[in-house]
Amino acid sequence: MRHLLSAGDLSRAEALSLLDLAEEMHEVQRRPIKKLPALRGRTIINMFFEDSTRTRTSFEIAGKWMSADTINVSAKGSSVSKGESLRDTMLTLDAMGVDCFVIRHASSGAVAQAATWVRAHVVNAGDGQHEHPTQALLDAYTMRQHFRAKGLGDGFAGKRIAIVGDLLHSRVVRSNVLLQTVLGGNVTLVAPPTLLPTGVENWDAAVTSDFDQALEQADVVMMLRVQRERMASGFFPSEREYTAGYGLTSERLARLKPTAAIMHPGPMNRGVEISSQAADAAASRVLDQVSAGVAVRMSVLYHLLGGEGDQ
Amino acid sequence: MRHLLSAGDLSRAEALSLLDLAEEMHEVQRRPIKKLPALRGRTIINMFFEDSTRTRTSFEIAGKWMSADTINVSAKGSSVSKGESLRDTMLTLDAMGVDCFVIRHASSGAVAQAATWVRAHVVNAGDGQHEHPTQALLDAYTMRQHFRAKGLGDGFAGKRIAIVGDLLHSRVVRSNVLLQTVLGGNVTLVAPPTLLPTGVENWDAAVTSDFDQALEQADVVMMLRVQRERMASGFFPSEREYTAGYGLTSERLARLKPTAAIMHPGPMNRGVEISSQAADAAASRVLDQVSAGVAVRMSVLYHLLGGEGDQ
Amino acid sequence: MRHLLSAGDLSRAEALSLLDLAEEMHEVQRRPIKKLPALRGRTIINMFFEDSTRTRTSFEIAGKWMSADTINVSAKGSSVSKGESLRDTMLTLDAMGVDCFVIRHASSGAVAQAATWVRAHVVNAGDGQHEHPTQALLDAYTMRQHFRAKGLGDGFAGKRIAIVGDLLHSRVVRSNVLLQTVLGGNVTLVAPPTLLPTGVENWDAAVTSDFDQALEQADVVMMLRVQRERMASGFFPSEREYTAGYGLTSERLARLKPTAAIMHPGPMNRGVEISSQAADAAASRVLDQVSAGVAVRMSVLYHLLGGEGDQ
Repeated sequence: MRHLLSAGDLSRAEALSLLDLAEEMHEVQRRPIKKLPALRGRTIINMFFEDSTRTRTSFEIAGKWMSADTINVSAKGSSVSKGESLRDTMLTLDAMGVDCFVIRHASSGAVAQAATWVRAHVVNAGDGQHEHPTQALLDAYTMRQHFRAKGLGDGFAGKRIAIVGDLLHSRVVRSNVLLQTVLGGNVTLVAPPTLLPTGVENWDAAVTSDFDQALEQADVVMMLRVQRERMASGFFPSEREYTAGYGLTSERLARLKPTAAIMHPGPMNRGVEISSQAADAAASRVLDQVSAGVAVRMSVLYHLLGGEGDQ
Repeated sequence: MRHLLSAGDLSRAEALSLLDLAEEMHEVQRRPIKKLPALRGRTIINMFFEDSTRTRTSFEIAGKWMSADTINVSAKGSSVSKGESLRDTMLTLDAMGVDCFVIRHASSGAVAQAATWVRAHVVNAGDGQHEHPTQALLDAYTMRQHFRAKGLGDGFAGKRIAIVGDLLHSRVVRSNVLLQTVLGGNVTLVAPPTLLPTGVENWDAAVTSDFDQALEQADVVMMLRVQRERMASGFFPSEREYTAGYGLTSERLARLKPTAAIMHPGPMNRGVEISSQAADAAASRVLDQVSAGVAVRMSVLYHLLGGEGDQ
Repeated sequence: MRHLLSAGDLSRAEALSLLDLAEEMHEVQRRPIKKLPALRGRTIINMFFEDSTRTRTSFEIAGKWMSADTINVSAKGSSVSKGESLRDTMLTLDAMGVDCFVIRHASSGAVAQAATWVRAHVVNAGDGQHEHPTQALLDAYTMRQHFRAKGLGDGFAGKRIAIVGDLLHSRVVRSNVLLQTVLGGNVTLVAPPTLLPTGVENWDAAVTSDFDQALEQADVVMMLRVQRERMASGFFPSEREYTAGYGLTSERLARLKPTAAIMHPGPMNRGVEISSQAADAAASRVLDQVSAGVAVRMSVLYHLLGGEGDQ
């Protein structure tokens, strides 16, 4: 594995190997002394062209706990603001001798393109409305932990995963569908017709606009953030109507399977796509997702940078 | 000690213990190799919802010198700007497995509230116009060093501490009054009536608007920053009148006790609340305060995170 | 060596010693485990009052690879924005016990002035239109590597270095001229008359406005960034005319000596002062400059902070 650009690049074996190592990394997170020497002397640049607290912090913690040197570069204050091309910026930082770039960028495809220019490893930390592969991995990790805890076994085959909301603008959904394609989960996409991506009929997932029907069969209900700005753009008529049709309200919460998991990539709009009752319910795995995020990113960084062949 | 939220939470024994350990930490600061293994594998998030160079840097240095992993999160670029609640932001970062939050926030009480939501330790690095307990501790540390240097003994009992200026908008004054309540110093608050906090009559301190009288008795004169914006709001008529009544001018400098200390939490408005002559006088302890700040914060972080019970 | 403020402060022996140690440091950069214990327990503050990705990152990597604690302070979010003087900001950070400041500032002379106030070492990372000594050192390092690779020997004596473009607003040119004065290279400055600094006739360099003539004799052609904003200010009539007279176009590229090096401090305006063909040509040393930057900064920091006398 040279880069992690798309969840679709992972074979089943690679995906499971990443999840398995993440379990070992998760043990570190529970220790009082959270420090492994694994990536000592490796340099990771967190390059965020879009604001992000949770993802940037999660990667930074993952790197630091494995003793890597981590350096933050944000778009503001970068040469990009002086009109330098992304290519020249990447080539420049690469020439300094860094080992890995973790990149978030507003343009779909920009991260994969950046990877073609550099010698260092690249991790896609979210590119436009395209992909966010470590999110899909941490989601899968959280699901697997949940399935085990509920006595539903270890595998994804036959599990029903409903992903609900603004699919059109979501990079999370695309990466989850691609990852579940190799892991074997059955994904159902739930959204109003105006929020479905073009070509969704070719994805390896069922599509419906009837949340209530999908809800009762789901082992996992993953709610996506809906951005209020979309309303102004006419994607949906009003917050209230959106919530009525596609929110995980208290009423819908009551109709979930007893073993179902509630997930959300965050940040949540409480009262819009998810009620506070659902967000804080016993079935909610939202904070487990965050916790898994660090372990999964440690696993990804170790897979890319920790190999002996590299040294 | 689980959190440090208010100087008023500290017993006399706890306060003295923090100051005593800070003295040992201060030794580290004088070494060429400034590094202790004390907090290796502990993760500290500096979460500054308001700008601050000196306090953030002081905490960051304190953490790094004890080998902790330190991570900066600022309000800009945080999910708070996407409308996430402070509670969800705190829960999210807490779920990553960090050990301590150092928080500055513009709202009085926000830090104490944040502490109720998380598993990690919390240090209040300044909340609105409420409290700034590490500032009060570094002030006490500096006073004690000064008293010793001047042959005035080790204790605070009987020492007269005048705190002068914009008491209404100061979190420093409140924390100092609370800390001196257990340490035993006699605090006199000096301010124009428009800049006195409501309820100040219930504080454990004398109150006066006559700086000249308080001045001559003081062992410590602590000048507070006055914000020019306050003038526009009618809190005082003009900079010149403010300085005439409440500035530590060169004239007033000459009337200080020979053993008195001049203090200021910074940043200073030279020529407004303090003259350059006073700021740079032999009696000025302003830079000693800054130096003490790192040692005191090392002590606080070690008290919270370094215990064996934790490990 | 206490500070590095100006390339003109370096003796020939000091300059060569910095370049020689940089060669050893460059070896580290090629290792998979990039970590030396050299500056463990030393604290370096990167204080950037102007935005810069490449220089700040280069210094941060240099510090981290030598195990120093590095802390970033930017103007935004600093007490400077609260009206504190630069002197008080410097005194405050210095009092915390840091070992070195790496400073970039918009005002010529500000860094040298800052150095007079503090106990810590100071490195000038670019001050206004004045100096950028580590850039000149990395340029010299890159030239020396290039001369060797081309079988032109080790020394600078007799080598012809053309520096081309907006000399008036460049801190790079001034530092290069000063450094080559001790190293022995022959510098020719090439610019339209409107972009020549006052007093350039007293510099140790030839001056011409005829790029085509200088071009054919040059062993090194160093192109400077031209800022489009200058056009509006009347320094040159149009981008097209600027490129025609002073751009390293494909036509001019063909007329370079076969052993010549193309250099540029970046960020490049491709199509203005340098064509993409020239930027990416085999003769281009632009990325080697960036790579050398880390090694040279390691060398500078080690010279300032690593001595035994310090410990």
